Amino acid sequence: MSKHNLFSDVPLNLPDELFTALIATGTVRISRIVSHGHASPDGFWSAQDEHDWVIVLKGAARLRFGDGEIEMNPGDFVNIPARKRHRVEWTTPDEPTVWLAVYYREPA
Amino acid sequence: MSKHNLFSDVPLNLPDELFTALIATGTVRISRIVSHGHASPDGFWSAQDEHDWVIVLKGAARLRFGDGEIEMNPGDFVNIPARKRHRVEWTTPDEPTVWLAVYYREPA
Repeated sequence: MSKHNLFSDVPLNLPDELFTALIATGTVRISRIVSHGHASPDGFWSAQDEHDWVIVLKGAARLRFGDGEIEMNPGDFVNIPARKRHRVEWTTPDEPTVWLAVYYREPA
Repeated sequence: MSKHNLFSDVPLNLPDELFTALIATGTVRISRIVSHGHASPDGFWSAQDEHDWVIVLKGAARLRFGDGEIEMNPGDFVNIPARKRHRVEWTTPDEPTVWLAVYYREPA
C-alpha cells in the first residue's frame, strides 16, 4: 500500500488547467484538476456523457450553468448530471484551485 | 443545481463514526466519514467487496494493513483494493477527522 497527496506537485506556473487521472475504470473515474486563474474558453460549455460529482478543496471558483452560477469555496461540492451544460466561469488568480472530480455513469 | 459543503454539519460530539452517503449507484458510492478519536474495534478488520479510494481532508489518522501502517494527513489518499484487510488504527482526538471515500466495483 502506498499513499499519495492530492496537494503535492501542484505547479505554481500553469499555462493550462492540469488534469490528473487517479482512478479510471469502465464506470468510474477520479481526477484531480488544478486551475490557476483559468476559465473555460469564451462560449465553451461542457456537457459530458458522465455524471460529475465535483468538490473544490483549495482556492475558489465559479461554475456557470444555463440556469445560474454557483460560487465554490473549499469543501463545496455539486453533483452535475450527465449532459448538463456547465462551464468554469472563473477561478481565483491568487492561488491554485484544486478540484477533485468523480465521473460516473449510472444515475445516483 | 445546489451545492453543499463537506465540512459543514460536522458534529463536535460524536459517540460513533458518522457515515454520510453523498452518491450511491449500483457501481459507485461516495461517502463522507467523520471520526473523532475513533478507531476500529480491537481485532476488527474491514475487507469489503468494493475497492475503496479514500482521502483524509481534515484531521489525522493511521490506517493499518496486514503488511504495515500508513499515517494519513490532509490530502493523503490511498486506493484500497477489494478484500484487502484494513482497519482504522487511530484518529486524532484533537479535532474531527473528515474522510472522503469512493467505493467502486471494477478494478482500476
